[in-house]
Amino acid sequence: MKGPIDLETFLPSNYQEISTVKHIHVAIAGFGGVGRAVAGLLLARRNRYRSLYDVDVRLAAVCGSRAGLSSTDGLELQDFDRLIEGRSGPDFLMAARPDVLIEAGPSNFRTGSPGHGYIGSALDAGIHAIVISKGALVFDGKGLQDRARKTGAFLKVSGATAAALPTIDLLNHNLKGCEFIRIEGILNATTNFLLSAMMDDGMSFVDALAKAQQGGFAESDPRNDTEGWDTAAKVLILANFGLDAGLTMDNIAVDGIQNVTDAQVKAWKDAKLVPKLIGSIVRNDGIYSAKVGVKALPASDVFSQVAGKSKAIRITTDTMGEIVAIGSGAEPMATASAALKDFEHIVMARH
Amino acid sequence: MKGPIDLETFLPSNYQEISTVKHIHVAIAGFGGVGRAVAGLLLARRNRYRSLYDVDVRLAAVCGSRAGLSSTDGLELQDFDRLIEGRSGPDFLMAARPDVLIEAGPSNFRTGSPGHGYIGSALDAGIHAIVISKGALVFDGKGLQDRARKTGAFLKVSGATAAALPTIDLLNHNLKGCEFIRIEGILNATTNFLLSAMMDDGMSFVDALAKAQQGGFAESDPRNDTEGWDTAAKVLILANFGLDAGLTMDNIAVDGIQNVTDAQVKAWKDAKLVPKLIGSIVRNDGIYSAKVGVKALPASDVFSQVAGKSKAIRITTDTMGEIVAIGSGAEPMATASAALKDFEHIVMARH
Repeated sequence: MKGPIDLETFLPSNYQEISTVKHIHVAIAGFGGVGRAVAGLLLARRNRYRSLYDVDVRLAAVCGSRAGLSSTDGLELQDFDRLIEGRSGPDFLMAARPDVLIEAGPSNFRTGSPGHGYIGSALDAGIHAIVISKGALVFDGKGLQDRARKTGAFLKVSGATAAALPTIDLLNHNLKGCEFIRIEGILNATTNFLLSAMMDDGMSFVDALAKAQQGGFAESDPRNDTEGWDTAAKVLILANFGLDAGLTMDNIAVDGIQNVTDAQVKAWKDAKLVPKLIGSIVRNDGIYSAKVGVKALPASDVFSQVAGKSKAIRITTDTMGEIVAIGSGAEPMATASAALKDFEHIVMARH
Repeated sequence: MKGPIDLETFLPSNYQEISTVKHIHVAIAGFGGVGRAVAGLLLARRNRYRSLYDVDVRLAAVCGSRAGLSSTDGLELQDFDRLIEGRSGPDFLMAARPDVLIEAGPSNFRTGSPGHGYIGSALDAGIHAIVISKGALVFDGKGLQDRARKTGAFLKVSGATAAALPTIDLLNHNLKGCEFIRIEGILNATTNFLLSAMMDDGMSFVDALAKAQQGGFAESDPRNDTEGWDTAAKVLILANFGLDAGLTMDNIAVDGIQNVTDAQVKAWKDAKLVPKLIGSIVRNDGIYSAKVGVKALPASDVFSQVAGKSKAIRITTDTMGEIVAIGSGAEPMATASAALKDFEHIVMARH
């Protein structure tokens, strides 16, 4: 068998300028655990992108809140440890002229910062945006959708809604054509882990939380998870990006697990029920409403099996019946992989 | 509020010829329960297609094995009861010049007939094919893929692999970019129903089968289901269309539930295990292998909750961890809806 000819040896040095191989330059805003996982996975998949889509993917620029780095030739793994202070912000990333922005920074629902600045700058310039952090999408999802529509850029959000668990793409792709009657989700791993610990290990909420914080499964200020706001944010993004429901946080009744008592845990155990923090969206007369709260389910309900750090979604449709999906990918790789699913869909659509 | 202007009143009578609205003509081969469900749902969704994609969908022709009907203006529901004898076969359907063929006829794995003739004729003419019956795909999936590639026609098979349960599109869309390590599925409703009856109601295989046949959940010759061939066919299509694995039926070790004894059922109950007929595909050193057989699972396995006529798939990936999907749509609507998901994806890609 004869292998393919090594074209490099026959090509002039200005090959890239005259070749038909397309380059895709990627910039990453937010360079903590998730951002770095995205960057590493993107670089590791360059051969895949070249062989499947005939594109040459380069990491043009990355930045955290204080430091960053860019290179027209593309950054490599070893560059990640020599970020330069002061190179940060939308203007810095946009100067690298990326084709795609991946936003993986911290998340603030009340201001949308810092993601909103990066995403908005990208979309206004016709640069496709893949969003992982929920802040900007909760703060101004509609505004960002409008700005994307204006320039024809893609705005993709798989990484922001339960990551490796398919959610929005179940609605938009797998169940295409259906009407959606009800959507329920176990969307927050921390609260699911805490409820499992309280039910299975007999721990109080306070003790379970302390244990989770020690293990790194809960934040030092855990209220965003425990009071249901993280679930509510995912429900909101799912409703607006998956169903075009036009909801705001004010439309969602939000309750968490912070007030679950030992007596309640005992009562659920006695009744052989399993409590789950459920985010739900229901359609009535064509109008969607959403809420977040604890629901005690019978053991025969498949959601009762979704333990620990797994997540799940149940979608009730008119013609396809009920579809349940359960996911349990390890972070940060699962989220990085969800963002790069979005990336690959963009590459397929545009190149 | 002012409604949209009714354009019809302002348009000349030859409007259709000069309008930019695109027409999509659909033909359906196989007009039993599933074919009729597809036809009815397609007609019911015409407003959806027009408002979302600005296309005018018409049902140009339908036929069963002996009778059919066609109309350039498009068939309506009331036409379904006045099919004309002798109007059948690929030539009859192709004469209606469809843009899309939906094949929903009987399934024969050994000859591929009659579906293979319809699908092949369509693909050769550049007509997109949506396949529901498994026969032709098992008999000559590779050949049909090649013929589709040659003319650029789509060949879509969601309805042939567990219908409303997402399977191939999980691999090709939701988990895009992942490597697939293992796929396991509960893909046959009849055997799952029989195993549930044997375990939960203490029935023997023979009694459970008789009950299922009375209820219309099992065929009078049930061996295609009970001996695992239906599951094997779905595994094969999943492997070849979802993973490009290049398998044939000869590559799959197939065992069914026909030899499950009362003693085995008792042993599983004593061990608190739940038996399921599992079709699986495993990747080792880049090579896929597949098999079908009964596997006894612990009660904590989410597959143990997939009872009765539900179906499920579990996909183990490199970067997104494990994803489980469970579906339980009522037939024939769920299958019709899966085929029309394929239809809508074609419309979105081509119009």
